[in-house]
Amino acid sequence: MRIIYKLEEMTETARGWLAGGAVGFVPTRGYLHQGHIALIEAAKQECEISVVSIFVNQMQFDRQEDFTQYPRNMARDLQLLNRTHVDVLFLPRAEEIYPPNFSTYVTPVGPVAERLEGVTGPAYIRGVSTHITKLFQLVRPDIVYFGQKNAQQVAVVRQLIRDLNIDVNLRVIPTVRESDGLAMSSQNHLLSPVERKAAGIVYRALLAGKALAEKHEGRPAAIEKAMTDLIATEPLVQLDYAAVCQPETMNELDNVKPRCMLVIAARIGSIRLIDNFVWQEKGRWQM
Amino acid sequence: MRIIYKLEEMTETARGWLAGGAVGFVPTRGYLHQGHIALIEAAKQECEISVVSIFVNQMQFDRQEDFTQYPRNMARDLQLLNRTHVDVLFLPRAEEIYPPNFSTYVTPVGPVAERLEGVTGPAYIRGVSTHITKLFQLVRPDIVYFGQKNAQQVAVVRQLIRDLNIDVNLRVIPTVRESDGLAMSSQNHLLSPVERKAAGIVYRALLAGKALAEKHEGRPAAIEKAMTDLIATEPLVQLDYAAVCQPETMNELDNVKPRCMLVIAARIGSIRLIDNFVWQEKGRWQM
Repeated sequence: MRIIYKLEEMTETARGWLAGGAVGFVPTRGYLHQGHIALIEAAKQECEISVVSIFVNQMQFDRQEDFTQYPRNMARDLQLLNRTHVDVLFLPRAEEIYPPNFSTYVTPVGPVAERLEGVTGPAYIRGVSTHITKLFQLVRPDIVYFGQKNAQQVAVVRQLIRDLNIDVNLRVIPTVRESDGLAMSSQNHLLSPVERKAAGIVYRALLAGKALAEKHEGRPAAIEKAMTDLIATEPLVQLDYAAVCQPETMNELDNVKPRCMLVIAARIGSIRLIDNFVWQEKGRWQM
Repeated sequence: MRIIYKLEEMTETARGWLAGGAVGFVPTRGYLHQGHIALIEAAKQECEISVVSIFVNQMQFDRQEDFTQYPRNMARDLQLLNRTHVDVLFLPRAEEIYPPNFSTYVTPVGPVAERLEGVTGPAYIRGVSTHITKLFQLVRPDIVYFGQKNAQQVAVVRQLIRDLNIDVNLRVIPTVRESDGLAMSSQNHLLSPVERKAAGIVYRALLAGKALAEKHEGRPAAIEKAMTDLIATEPLVQLDYAAVCQPETMNELDNVKPRCMLVIAARIGSIRLIDNFVWQEKGRWQM
């Protein structure tokens, strides 16, 4: 695995790949887990060249303390990555990729930027959009891989690829889960054993919402209430939102039917839990 | 000359060029004049493949009537372009490049977005930035050519190339002028003979500012006043601004010295006149 720190070296390297095979790209914030490994394996299977980036982007955090407390462990990440045989690890330095005079943002508007994650963390949407646009320019991937877990990030990236005409294909890989259904996350290890047990309620609330939808409950509010009520039975978990929405725009829906998403965001202390199920065409669930 | 209308065809074509020679790109709003021809000639001289785009971007206009009245003459543009032997003309259709659900913008902040053109037309900066970022993705040029006349557009593009890490070189070509010094513009032909004569005052005001600067007048306000006073002698011309600024950020300056720009924007009726001189290192003027 080759490690690239300098933006210019990344640019030159990516330019050299242009005449070669497909480049698969997995952008991450580090502290890698099995969810990331699934993305990297998909990239390695489909592409000649695989690239992982690790960068904790301060711009995506509304609160300085969340940025400071975000878990980091480069030694562990390197060990994991070496086992995946990924070709390149791109590790840009904050002072080079966001110099003091940085002043151009990629700004989505509409429900994808204003609802759900856009309400609880307005800096987040702009931060993700700006950063991924920059990475697309530097790495010039043919295919980019994201996990379904962070559904609004996926929706934002899909929208910016379309709106800015970026020549890249988006692959969305199913969420990887612990044995009790909890979605893998870099922050799960920060939970105490009691909190870790409580965290399973998010997955069970989604299962409850799914069951109701399959029983032909067509009212989004009824499904949202069922998920909310179940989360409320676990006093350690504070709900941010439990919503039924359109999976590409994050917009509200009038009816619950295939091509909708159940999405939950909650907190245990300062640890954020997000998860979703997507009800696809033909009634299959991506979960 | 090959004409490309479809975005997908442009993307595929640009991808095919990646392994080949340098691509030189001249984005325009059409109604081509000698200023555009100078950009195209520079691209042809320096690059193996030359691309011109024509698109009047509604997003850049604050007032619908300015967009509607913007001069267009495709037959004349095609005739001119055929003589330049440019390789590709990219003519995206508005409904394809800005579909109804378009909702991701490139948004510069800071003085380059807020001062001068940012004050008189706030939509303009965001419109230019978003459009040129899209064109960079579609055409994937190695070198992009802009005229110095539209100095704030140049500053915005320089900033977004740097901030979004776009792998393209920016070339700024000196302003092409009429015999009385008036900067070439798509709108000059809309001036009546009397107005056309009056328009020369903008160039003469810049010359007056330059003369003062060379006489060691170090106060920006004094040079701005001299330019403003000269414009005021021509009743047909309404001044938007006459400013001394830093040429890369459009920010104010404390002192007039090399690495500064004199910039004027004015109107004759609804026709806008913009022009600038840049005082470069070693005391040379780009004008």
